[in-house]
Amino acid sequence: MKKILTIDAGGTKITCAVTDTTGKIIGEVEKYSTPKNINDLIELFKSIIKKYEDETECISIATAGAVNTENTKVESSTPNMPEGYNNLDFSGLSKKRVFVENDANCAAWAEYKLGAARGDENTITVTLGTGIGGGFIAGGRLLRGKSGRGGEVGSMKIKDKGRICTCRRKDCWESYASGTGLKMTAEEVASNDLCFKTSIFKDKNPADITTYDIIEGISVKDEYSLKVFNIWKQDLITGLINIANIFDPESIIISGGMGKFTDACEIQESVNKEIVVSPVKIKQAEAGNYSGMLGAALLACEKFRL
Amino acid sequence: MKKILTIDAGGTKITCAVTDTTGKIIGEVEKYSTPKNINDLIELFKSIIKKYEDETECISIATAGAVNTENTKVESSTPNMPEGYNNLDFSGLSKKRVFVENDANCAAWAEYKLGAARGDENTITVTLGTGIGGGFIAGGRLLRGKSGRGGEVGSMKIKDKGRICTCRRKDCWESYASGTGLKMTAEEVASNDLCFKTSIFKDKNPADITTYDIIEGISVKDEYSLKVFNIWKQDLITGLINIANIFDPESIIISGGMGKFTDACEIQESVNKEIVVSPVKIKQAEAGNYSGMLGAALLACEKFRL
Repeated sequence: MKKILTIDAGGTKITCAVTDTTGKIIGEVEKYSTPKNINDLIELFKSIIKKYEDETECISIATAGAVNTENTKVESSTPNMPEGYNNLDFSGLSKKRVFVENDANCAAWAEYKLGAARGDENTITVTLGTGIGGGFIAGGRLLRGKSGRGGEVGSMKIKDKGRICTCRRKDCWESYASGTGLKMTAEEVASNDLCFKTSIFKDKNPADITTYDIIEGISVKDEYSLKVFNIWKQDLITGLINIANIFDPESIIISGGMGKFTDACEIQESVNKEIVVSPVKIKQAEAGNYSGMLGAALLACEKFRL
Repeated sequence: MKKILTIDAGGTKITCAVTDTTGKIIGEVEKYSTPKNINDLIELFKSIIKKYEDETECISIATAGAVNTENTKVESSTPNMPEGYNNLDFSGLSKKRVFVENDANCAAWAEYKLGAARGDENTITVTLGTGIGGGFIAGGRLLRGKSGRGGEVGSMKIKDKGRICTCRRKDCWESYASGTGLKMTAEEVASNDLCFKTSIFKDKNPADITTYDIIEGISVKDEYSLKVFNIWKQDLITGLINIANIFDPESIIISGGMGKFTDACEIQESVNKEIVVSPVKIKQAEAGNYSGMLGAALLACEKFRL
């Protein structure tokens, strides 16, 4: 049986495993803290690869950042990775073939092949975390764009309130419907709405209210928290309507830390009330915590015809 | 040399011509008014087809409305076409093979193969008319979505002002950056802004100001008209930024009646200042008035491997 060494390279953790060509993990998953220094990171990659390369056909890597069209190198800035990361030519790390792809794209591919989007030739995986990431499958193919940066769906402008996003642009979807967006909405509502005065968080500085506070507040039916969350949910729905109208997908898969706080059925109903295309399924991600690694392995199998 | 009979079926005109497999028109282009009655329309199609089907390999049709995945039938409502149009099975109209595709998709394909987007594997043609239409090419393939409705880019929400679109939804890009959008902005500015008091249109009812008035006003540097047009242009740019970020295309091609009033270079500069992907080319359409017919013919050649 052909095997693939697959690595997920994120800002906090480096995770690796060996899989077969169907995306099944063989043996243990290994985890390391991401080194702060580029040379230490390269040494870590090399030691992982040395350990497994003889038994595997190729190396696949899911990484933060936009990957070039040759799938060998990160081309965008990657603020969470060590300086110099985007000068690293991954193909030089092994005597075997190396395949690199953006982690959001890999996660979307895993949902398409193994997860909630199985059988859907047109599907989008939206990752709701600190920011918003997107991976698009159109006609059974990963949408990469001219420079591997396709799917920057968090940068879609959905309002004209002038809210400044962490990317320094204004009114990005990410600045409303990500975890950071929820926090910004929480601060805004606390400053402008009387419901904050009777909230369980009334003694907190509005700027210190966290996403966890809001989730906790909802569980005890705190009126302020419910209001904040409803605004956030509506902003999430607005962006989902936009991408459903543009892509006409069979499904949109919700993933990421904030994703688990959403009710996919309720969101599906709201989205389908407003879209101009035929109804879309909205589902929670199912490919699991290793979807980045698995998607990378399966994409490498496609690329190298394994 | 293999020949294709190609037809553009619009709400006002039915146009037809014979082309070769490279999209070159052979002979004359024929034009007819679109019959108001579905039976008359079917008779017109049949008479055109009868005249040319013996000399051609297949029939291609660019049509208003969303086309099914088999490219044989219109599946959406088509308010500009006779009632019953979306029950018509085009494949029954000829003994030769028939290929049907949405006209915006055909126009985009023509720009990709023959026009301003030649060589760009990822490109979007945005048609600015009474509404906004879109045709997307990703990785050299037409993006159709699950039901042929992909590219409904006019329905993207870009604001939260509550402006009602002609589709009855709120704040669609189309309600700001189409010809209808320009007219709505003209009325809004006339009602709210002092510059209208000194405008050459000050004696007009704001609801009666047309897109042509605004274009005329710009030519004489009327302050009100310039203000309206600048708002319209900024709204156009906002939507273009969104689709550039999502698709990371080499180019966006501007087409349609309102498209010719835009300065592609100026818009390109503004869009590239704000996008998070690498720079995109913004260009005027070049495939000409028959881009729908030509794109349909070339897509039929792909489908039938001519």
